[in-house]
Amino acid sequence: MAGTVDDLTLPTRDGTLVEHVMAAIRRRIASRALAPGGKLPSIRALAQTMRVSKSTVVEAYDRLAAEGVIRSRPGSGFYSAASLAPLSLAELAPRLDRAVDPFWVSRQSLEARREVLKPGCGWLPDAWMPEDEIRRALRGLARTKDATGLTDYGTPLGLAPLRAFLSRRLAEQGVEAAFDRILLTDSGTQAIDLVCRLLVQPGDTVLVDDPCYFNFLALLRAHQVTVIGVPMTPAGPDLGAFEQALGHHKPRLYITNSGLHNPTGAALSTVTAHRLLKLAERHGLTVVEDDIFADFEHEPAPRLAALDGLDRVVRIGSFSKTLSASFRCGYIAARPDWIDKLTDLRIATGFSSHRLAEELVLGVLGSSGYRRHLESLRTRLGRSMAAVVPRLQALGITPWIVPKAGMLLWCRLPDDLDAAVVARHALNEDVVLAPGNVFSPAQSARSFMRFNVAQCTDERVFKGLERAMTAAG
Amino acid sequence: MAGTVDDLTLPTRDGTLVEHVMAAIRRRIASRALAPGGKLPSIRALAQTMRVSKSTVVEAYDRLAAEGVIRSRPGSGFYSAASLAPLSLAELAPRLDRAVDPFWVSRQSLEARREVLKPGCGWLPDAWMPEDEIRRALRGLARTKDATGLTDYGTPLGLAPLRAFLSRRLAEQGVEAAFDRILLTDSGTQAIDLVCRLLVQPGDTVLVDDPCYFNFLALLRAHQVTVIGVPMTPAGPDLGAFEQALGHHKPRLYITNSGLHNPTGAALSTVTAHRLLKLAERHGLTVVEDDIFADFEHEPAPRLAALDGLDRVVRIGSFSKTLSASFRCGYIAARPDWIDKLTDLRIATGFSSHRLAEELVLGVLGSSGYRRHLESLRTRLGRSMAAVVPRLQALGITPWIVPKAGMLLWCRLPDDLDAAVVARHALNEDVVLAPGNVFSPAQSARSFMRFNVAQCTDERVFKGLERAMTAAG
Repeated sequence: MAGTVDDLTLPTRDGTLVEHVMAAIRRRIASRALAPGGKLPSIRALAQTMRVSKSTVVEAYDRLAAEGVIRSRPGSGFYSAASLAPLSLAELAPRLDRAVDPFWVSRQSLEARREVLKPGCGWLPDAWMPEDEIRRALRGLARTKDATGLTDYGTPLGLAPLRAFLSRRLAEQGVEAAFDRILLTDSGTQAIDLVCRLLVQPGDTVLVDDPCYFNFLALLRAHQVTVIGVPMTPAGPDLGAFEQALGHHKPRLYITNSGLHNPTGAALSTVTAHRLLKLAERHGLTVVEDDIFADFEHEPAPRLAALDGLDRVVRIGSFSKTLSASFRCGYIAARPDWIDKLTDLRIATGFSSHRLAEELVLGVLGSSGYRRHLESLRTRLGRSMAAVVPRLQALGITPWIVPKAGMLLWCRLPDDLDAAVVARHALNEDVVLAPGNVFSPAQSARSFMRFNVAQCTDERVFKGLERAMTAAG
Repeated sequence: MAGTVDDLTLPTRDGTLVEHVMAAIRRRIASRALAPGGKLPSIRALAQTMRVSKSTVVEAYDRLAAEGVIRSRPGSGFYSAASLAPLSLAELAPRLDRAVDPFWVSRQSLEARREVLKPGCGWLPDAWMPEDEIRRALRGLARTKDATGLTDYGTPLGLAPLRAFLSRRLAEQGVEAAFDRILLTDSGTQAIDLVCRLLVQPGDTVLVDDPCYFNFLALLRAHQVTVIGVPMTPAGPDLGAFEQALGHHKPRLYITNSGLHNPTGAALSTVTAHRLLKLAERHGLTVVEDDIFADFEHEPAPRLAALDGLDRVVRIGSFSKTLSASFRCGYIAARPDWIDKLTDLRIATGFSSHRLAEELVLGVLGSSGYRRHLESLRTRLGRSMAAVVPRLQALGITPWIVPKAGMLLWCRLPDDLDAAVVARHALNEDVVLAPGNVFSPAQSARSFMRFNVAQCTDERVFKGLERAMTAAG
């Protein structure tokens, strides 16, 4: 576990050298470059690497030992103390402004009091959800003759009739997945997490779009992988940059939304999809297609899973956006051997699926009311989109594109405003926004912001936004 | 999906050839080598592979089509008919070699047809669960005025009133955990998984009891850590071996059940608990106390979390054993800084908790009927334990101890029988058993078996067990 400390430039004044060495060791411990209990470099080696005197290293080690950060074992050397602060996601990446930390928007949105407006969140208001169908499904379950669905564990792959339903729905989209090639999960996020647990190791590289759904970045940070962003175009990822990234970084996975892209609302074009898959094949890349917004589309965009036939594409989806986020259910459709391994992984890390949630999802999905709900949702979202775009434009906020469907709108702020600063000011107005750099692996979306048109029906959103922009300007 | 049929030796008489081909196809469908809806080999190809005439294959395919097992698509060929029947034990035949794999008992128990007896599984029969209270809670939710609980994401820590309820319950057990030091999870298993994600890295060492809950072993395998088992005594882990393991292996974590231990039913003694915590402190060890069987106890055993005050002990629990395994909910009570990091980790890997499940759990937990349910459960389990012990003893099966409470009974088989072999034979009797080595990191429990007394109410359990032991002997 002994390693070098090479991530530093030296300070100029001698007095800070000891602290400098101490900080370097602390950083290596915090980032787990030095494992808990791991051996530190010898005094001589570290002095050489850091170009400091041996006595400087001795003093740094002594002081760290006094603090309990490291421990000396006579005749053997210095070791990181075992009772170490645990791995922290925040410490693994360069400290971001909290406002552009992926967790910031999640926590602000999830924790917000009910009177807070959330144009930055990624889901629909409660009143837009199929409440009547859910109540009906709950009453149906309360009456069910067979108590198994109420008390027993789910099966390893999840409720068979729901998997059969999904299999038929996927077939309508051109994705052939027999029901035993579908694993139900507790959410779309858990689906991606399981796939990452199966397919990537710490230190691997994973491609995402830039911008991409911010929680992909949080998830990948938890997997300790290197994330490379590929710039997004209105027709999908920039293929030149994509190919370059494949050659240069040899990524293991690419995670994307091809239907309606989060945050831009872009839809993959057929030609981009074909070329992307050819590149993936040439470079042995696996693609995770997260189709969470599929039900919002008027006309389905091409799907990588349909073109590829679930060979190197893993298809992920969930019902949290259109059905309910309170009883969650996602799925993975993939190669049979991967489904088998993912099932074992899910047993190991969660034991079984949430059977009652699956029963409820099936109850709602199978109802005629749900199909009507989706149709009215699409119409309502179209109207909201048409209403919100000019309201934002009146504030000088310009959509990157106007998406064909869905709730998300990716916009540039006027006057090179810093979206994170605007978002912080907006909190004082009880408005939760989603600043662009939360979505950007390269932090190249400083002046961008994601809006949710379904959460922009209240006049106070625009008032609060205007005041926050003025305060930030 | 077209494949070869190569798992056959040819029959000697010509008259059976058609049936022979039919059996081969059926087997491929049953074993899922041919997926539902998958394409069968062409007539010519199969005739060649199986060294039979084309007319034999034609007749076999025609007969299978008449039976509805396969379907002909004119101009395209034959396809396996999509069947929605759940997986059956017979189809799992290829998995039999996995009899001491931790996943084996999980999958066998979770996938078993309803008529299969499961004395090896770790949960109560449906009829023992609080069905009426669950139906009442479902109806209550269906009527709730506020739709938020039906459609919206949960909060980052989980439903506040449920955390407050848990905080009061923990206080009754001497564990002080304010409600903001409790994180709700999707299950007890997910709780341990999150703690491992936070506290261990691949290559770390983790201590468990030997024997221990088999899914700990599966979970730790997924975390790529080294697992060291400490022999279990009726009063807790063997402290001599524990201390030696601490000095020798420098483990990061120790995971245990201190109330009612799985699989032995042992309860930690006060003196063992004190000494264990002193050793943990001296060696910088963190302890995960999984208290999943707490509600079965008549009188609570000492708890590490109560003695330690949630400093180096992380307390885990769930409601899957006494309330429902269909809507699952677990919790973690730990140091505030760990709860904060665990919350970020949960957002990254699952986004939010399952709000509806939390509402239902709270609805049932808070009902007067649930307290009565627990009381009658304890009595009923006591009676079952008293009835099952002599029945097993009559077969020469000896309990390691007779636990004070709970459903689990850890037993030694007579005549040095191999429990894995007995378990394999028992499958033919439609009885799922739990062979000892599934629970043993050191594979030192070859002649042991775990029984669930609540699943031993059917006479056929003992009949099947006796026949399986005879077949294995």
